[in-house]
Amino acid sequence: MTDLTIRPAEPTDHDAIWAILEPILWAGETFALPHDWNRAQALAYWFAPAHHVHVALDGDAVVGSYYIRANQLGAGDHVANGTYATHADAQGRGVARAMGLHSFETARRLSFTMMQFNLVVATNTRAVALWTGLGMHEIGRLPGVFRHPAHGPVDALVMHRVL
Amino acid sequence: MTDLTIRPAEPTDHDAIWAILEPILWAGETFALPHDWNRAQALAYWFAPAHHVHVALDGDAVVGSYYIRANQLGAGDHVANGTYATHADAQGRGVARAMGLHSFETARRLSFTMMQFNLVVATNTRAVALWTGLGMHEIGRLPGVFRHPAHGPVDALVMHRVL
Repeated sequence: MTDLTIRPAEPTDHDAIWAILEPILWAGETFALPHDWNRAQALAYWFAPAHHVHVALDGDAVVGSYYIRANQLGAGDHVANGTYATHADAQGRGVARAMGLHSFETARRLSFTMMQFNLVVATNTRAVALWTGLGMHEIGRLPGVFRHPAHGPVDALVMHRVL
Repeated sequence: MTDLTIRPAEPTDHDAIWAILEPILWAGETFALPHDWNRAQALAYWFAPAHHVHVALDGDAVVGSYYIRANQLGAGDHVANGTYATHADAQGRGVARAMGLHSFETARRLSFTMMQFNLVVATNTRAVALWTGLGMHEIGRLPGVFRHPAHGPVDALVMHRVL
């Protein structure tokens, strides 16, 4: 995807971001967020004041969005935390990978020195492989902390890397 | 401490809770929270709407406080998360242990089926020993995610147990 561009999100991106988030939330297979959030609830969360939100564009089409934030406050605020969402129609085209790399640069620019993911659903093998390939290490495996709609309680990984 | 009682916190406990939290925050050795929060900021956090706050009393004196909340939303909301603070003058008398056990019961009553701690500072060996003794398992060790005021970047443990 040589024409993929990533930039900070703007209010005019809200419709496109909701179009990405709604089916992901509804599927309930990857995010530990309410599956039945409406547009306003989902966007209020995604654009929380502490979040640095970006969008990935293929030409003029928003095909993905991510945010980073401080994972903890105070003495833990040098560690970033990121969440990533790719449009269903753009899966498998490197959008998440590009957003991941971009998010690491964004985090460095904001003076974060580490990235941590608190809950990577273990059954989301594509995500686990992607993040491992981008240098995120599995710190531990939390047993049964995610109720998968098809598989029941499944494990989730805590992942971490230095930036 | 046979006379230790634990009950839900009330607005009249605010002064006592702040007296416990202020030195802990200021020391900056255990909580990933801003060390310079004032009373209003600390209490707004401690009594966040999603928090179930309790206090431990030795006679009439509030010697500790804890809260539990859902650690994640949606498909992760069966996992509780707890934070515990003991008054400096009451250290070593089993207050934290009593609050820990009470918090597990509170969590069960609220239909949580697991407890997770996201950041137990590894240099806080008393806490690590306490939680291990109460059945919390070390899931993983996050390298350097906590900036200790004396030791610099130190590790933190992710701990988990079934309730």
